[in-house]
Amino acid sequence: MPRQFTKISLHEVDERVRLLAEKVYASALKEEETKNALSMFTVPEDCPIGLQQAKEWELRKEIEEQRSEESIKRSVNSNIVQITVEDYEQAAKALLTALFIREKYSRLAYHRFPRTTLPLCFISMATESCPVPSEGADPYSMEDLPQNLNYSLRMKDGIIYVYDNEDALKRDQPRSLPYPDLETFAIDMSHVLAMIADGPTKTYCHRRLNFLMSKFQLHEMLNEMAELKELKCVPHRDFYNVRKVDTHIHAAACMNQKHLLKFIQDTYKTEADRVVLEKNGKKLTLKQVFDNLKMDPYDLTVDSLDVHAGRQTFHRFDKFNSKYNPVGASELREIYLKSDNYINGEYFARLIKEVAHELEESKYQHAEPRLSIYGRATEEWENLSKWFIKQKLHSPNMRWIIQVPRIYDIFRSKKIVPNFAKMLENIFLPLFQATVNPQKHKEMHVFLKHVTGFDSVDDESKHSDHMFSYRSPKPEEWTTEENPPYTYYLFHMYANIMVLNNLRKERGLNTFQFRPHCGEAGSITHLVSAFLTADNISHGLNLKKSPVLQYLYYLTQVPIAMSPLSNNSLFLEYSKNPLREFLQKGLCVSLSTDDPLQFHYTKEALMEEYAIAAQLWKLSTCDVCEIARNSVLQSGLSHQEKKHFLGENYLQDGQEGNDIRRTNVAQIRMAYRHETLCNELKMVKLF
Amino acid sequence: MPRQFTKISLHEVDERVRLLAEKVYASALKEEETKNALSMFTVPEDCPIGLQQAKEWELRKEIEEQRSEESIKRSVNSNIVQITVEDYEQAAKALLTALFIREKYSRLAYHRFPRTTLPLCFISMATESCPVPSEGADPYSMEDLPQNLNYSLRMKDGIIYVYDNEDALKRDQPRSLPYPDLETFAIDMSHVLAMIADGPTKTYCHRRLNFLMSKFQLHEMLNEMAELKELKCVPHRDFYNVRKVDTHIHAAACMNQKHLLKFIQDTYKTEADRVVLEKNGKKLTLKQVFDNLKMDPYDLTVDSLDVHAGRQTFHRFDKFNSKYNPVGASELREIYLKSDNYINGEYFARLIKEVAHELEESKYQHAEPRLSIYGRATEEWENLSKWFIKQKLHSPNMRWIIQVPRIYDIFRSKKIVPNFAKMLENIFLPLFQATVNPQKHKEMHVFLKHVTGFDSVDDESKHSDHMFSYRSPKPEEWTTEENPPYTYYLFHMYANIMVLNNLRKERGLNTFQFRPHCGEAGSITHLVSAFLTADNISHGLNLKKSPVLQYLYYLTQVPIAMSPLSNNSLFLEYSKNPLREFLQKGLCVSLSTDDPLQFHYTKEALMEEYAIAAQLWKLSTCDVCEIARNSVLQSGLSHQEKKHFLGENYLQDGQEGNDIRRTNVAQIRMAYRHETLCNELKMVKLF
Repeated sequence: MPRQFTKISLHEVDERVRLLAEKVYASALKEEETKNALSMFTVPEDCPIGLQQAKEWELRKEIEEQRSEESIKRSVNSNIVQITVEDYEQAAKALLTALFIREKYSRLAYHRFPRTTLPLCFISMATESCPVPSEGADPYSMEDLPQNLNYSLRMKDGIIYVYDNEDALKRDQPRSLPYPDLETFAIDMSHVLAMIADGPTKTYCHRRLNFLMSKFQLHEMLNEMAELKELKCVPHRDFYNVRKVDTHIHAAACMNQKHLLKFIQDTYKTEADRVVLEKNGKKLTLKQVFDNLKMDPYDLTVDSLDVHAGRQTFHRFDKFNSKYNPVGASELREIYLKSDNYINGEYFARLIKEVAHELEESKYQHAEPRLSIYGRATEEWENLSKWFIKQKLHSPNMRWIIQVPRIYDIFRSKKIVPNFAKMLENIFLPLFQATVNPQKHKEMHVFLKHVTGFDSVDDESKHSDHMFSYRSPKPEEWTTEENPPYTYYLFHMYANIMVLNNLRKERGLNTFQFRPHCGEAGSITHLVSAFLTADNISHGLNLKKSPVLQYLYYLTQVPIAMSPLSNNSLFLEYSKNPLREFLQKGLCVSLSTDDPLQFHYTKEALMEEYAIAAQLWKLSTCDVCEIARNSVLQSGLSHQEKKHFLGENYLQDGQEGNDIRRTNVAQIRMAYRHETLCNELKMVKLF
Repeated sequence: MPRQFTKISLHEVDERVRLLAEKVYASALKEEETKNALSMFTVPEDCPIGLQQAKEWELRKEIEEQRSEESIKRSVNSNIVQITVEDYEQAAKALLTALFIREKYSRLAYHRFPRTTLPLCFISMATESCPVPSEGADPYSMEDLPQNLNYSLRMKDGIIYVYDNEDALKRDQPRSLPYPDLETFAIDMSHVLAMIADGPTKTYCHRRLNFLMSKFQLHEMLNEMAELKELKCVPHRDFYNVRKVDTHIHAAACMNQKHLLKFIQDTYKTEADRVVLEKNGKKLTLKQVFDNLKMDPYDLTVDSLDVHAGRQTFHRFDKFNSKYNPVGASELREIYLKSDNYINGEYFARLIKEVAHELEESKYQHAEPRLSIYGRATEEWENLSKWFIKQKLHSPNMRWIIQVPRIYDIFRSKKIVPNFAKMLENIFLPLFQATVNPQKHKEMHVFLKHVTGFDSVDDESKHSDHMFSYRSPKPEEWTTEENPPYTYYLFHMYANIMVLNNLRKERGLNTFQFRPHCGEAGSITHLVSAFLTADNISHGLNLKKSPVLQYLYYLTQVPIAMSPLSNNSLFLEYSKNPLREFLQKGLCVSLSTDDPLQFHYTKEALMEEYAIAAQLWKLSTCDVCEIARNSVLQSGLSHQEKKHFLGENYLQDGQEGNDIRRTNVAQIRMAYRHETLCNELKMVKLF
């Protein structure tokens, strides 16, 4: 079967969908503009959607359609005042369509898709995304590099196209790889967008989610003791020695404040006369830097360091971002928390390695730190790769993810890039080049073996005035200083990663997962974009606001790395965090720290995160072990490691996939989850 | 001035008070019987007491008084329907009376009383309660023991009386020491009891507390940044290196579950063939014990250990108590968590020393673990003292407190003691003997130097059918199997500690603080008893329910060791814990862990407690440092140590008493607290 991204043109789509799509995009923009908080897609937390709301929706839809000049000829027998079986049928059909859409995007990108959800598609959780150098082997070895394929590369519409040679390029005959296009994506998006605003579908999903909640509470009442008994019988395994992955953590904030403080003081004690910074052409020693700042590192405290999030950062992401500057001094950030500086990122690497060492000591804790690629220049990749190899950053307890901040507007206003396409090219072209010709890009080739995914980061509550649609300008034409909307970023990152993964798979190289920050704040449409494009997401708070999306994320078991302590400092009070509710309903949630530098107090940030969740929500041992298991599943750890940490058959569903001796998750729990999911899927497929 | 406990007889008291006292005692009992949740003394959390309630109360009082046969002749012009200035005057007078009552009990017991509160009394925070062996000196030295005084001792009405010699004893002429009596205590209690049920006083206190709350919020808005700025300028001092005392922790649960598990496994690995238990006359090795229990310690996990509190313990103190038995096996508790067993408490001591070692490593953390004296037999003291010295338990980061469980009923039903007096004698007579003749009680004499206080412990929600009053039987007459009420326990513990302290002070020996568990659950009257008798308390949750008591605890700055994580597992959800509110109003609260074995997850239980409070309540650095400072003040650390940890002048009030370079508490905060307290006191004394 050829791997193709089947193009759909708007002309082929029936007029009704086209119309609906436009309407939904417009309303999504309006929603962003008015900041009228998503009312269209949301369900009030306490009062369930009744018949009335559905009716109101139906009527409104009808009126709008009649008003519309392109009014569609269709039998107007939709003046139904009750939610009928037909409505449910319609809702179920829509949900199924959404599943198939996500399946398509997942399959093409070598993302994971649960076999339970669409068994006919024969897609399993991807097996080997990252064949990290096995124990004993040199993780930085540059031997046996694959040959140069001599392919040609060119960016078109913001996506890298691959050609067999220069000739094919001239003839515009790219290699047969799936190349996504914006129009098709926009149409697929519009299906899901329409669905999340559809009254009967909302009601259906809301009811199913309520049912899932009640069902779990019943399960808990009946089986809590039995689960506990199972766990007590498991020899030598408890919450402390099940594997846990910190699925979302930024490298530049992966140490806690006390750690950073001590590190600064230590370097000052031993290397005060070392030149560490070049500023305005002048070379400065560590001592001179601190002299200029008028401070003695010995007197420095976590208070003066001032990197911890406090009451001042709540709902102020801008203030939070400045917390990355120790003592408010960008010099210190430059010296200690950057990989590309005068000292070749040595201090930053040493800090990270100290964190890695602690994880290795703990044995059972892993982390997936994010390193930044900005898209300012093409050299970024080479520099980062060289840094990684020179500083020997590999740790068996760490897997690396590349984060790309959504800050085109800043680069454009500083005239660093002429258009959005250039930024995309800076980010992705080097990846393709290193994949085509590893001989010429040795360091990148080696480094990429350690990278397991990409993240898209920045403040989601910032919004763009531009309305994403199939008519959005191509990246080459995006020359304004305005930042593109979230969905536009996500599509273009996905598209390039997807093509890249197909190319790398052909060569037998590891592929990458797209794991954006999504649903921390901002418009609900973000979660629709990620539903199509992401392997898994970080945050997902806003799923709280849309029953349809929440239910879709449940049905497809999209892993969600949640960070309630981070949220508590930035966007949502701890007691209002939906993690517990999501867990009970059966969404695939894990716990992560986000930024220990800013949020955590103790030496063991991930354990602090688990401890607080367990205490506050009175989670049982089985609950926390289920979360830990989810974190391993979500992570970019290798197939071998997952087999080792979760059990030989971890890819199988339900009880068979669980080795209780390794996960400490009760089989009763596994069976409950599997049966429940199958039951929900059966209902969707019934109609 | 002779130190005397001035006796008041009921006959001397005017009839009105006598009547009121009886009524209040009766209603307190009724309240306990009906479990009708303290309605009489409480204020609904959200709706402030209006005029209506005060009016209602006035009317009810009037009606009751008219009904009463001993109706008092007094001008019945009290049909006031509004709270007038006179009411406030009355309330202020009553509050002042209460302050003087507490001052009397504190002074006599060498407890602490803030000089700000009643400056005329010239009572300062006690200076030197525990002259622990200075650095370098042998903490177990038995040289230079004080001479035998040859005093005679006899228990009378449950209180030890001291006589110069046998002759004086025969003549019943005790030494001139303050000996409290139940009748006077009951009368003093009744004043405060009457007050907490008095409508206008409730309204007055409620309003003042509301004002304190609003005032602090204003202070925070205005000065938060200024406080922070002050702290940033303090060199080398931050939250991590200010001194913190875990003011409430039980020795038998001072290690976390993982620690205990590892210890059990380690002992099994190295000492499996050691005889550790004698059961039914048969000596058992560690291996045999585990064989009998059919388990292999290697397979043991924190799940099978099952000492952690879970959802099952909420509102079930009985279930919680059983959590002290690892794997549900009392044998393991006997072997690992007892000081007086076949292996002379060696394992228990080693566990505690490991915890002490961690505190010493941390340098800035201290703890005040509780060791049990039960009152079953007189030898308990000798055994505990010998254990302490033989196992060399002294640590500079620990101070010891003796806890006495309120379980007379169990001993009586097992016929271990014939009456309550015997239990009291078992607890207190050895203390007096060791104080009179250290030569004969060398170990006890040495051990007592390390003890800084007494605690009264058990489930407060259990209640006694007996109504405490001046007519309660004397301890010698308390022969029923029924357990005496909380107040009865507290009075008799206080009385003996107070006499003992006076005796020890005469000899230049260290004195003890009475620091009962109080207000964790049960009747509000517990907090009245402790207001009179305690130097400081643990828990104090129920202060939430009585504005008058809360205000009195504020005015007298009674330190309260709070443990929100323990409460969260047992009595009160975290989000409902009043700690934050108490802190804001200015009550003297500290943070403590209670039982890390049952509640905490990480290696640093106290830091976990602080971290969660700081995270959940968004406490500022100044807030947490203020709590840490309170914990040092509350603790039994020596005057020398407090000077070292808080500053030379820590006994002074307000800013002068604070050395910001040591405490990291902003001077702005100190000034605010002091001014605010002075202001409240001025209002009380105005009338």
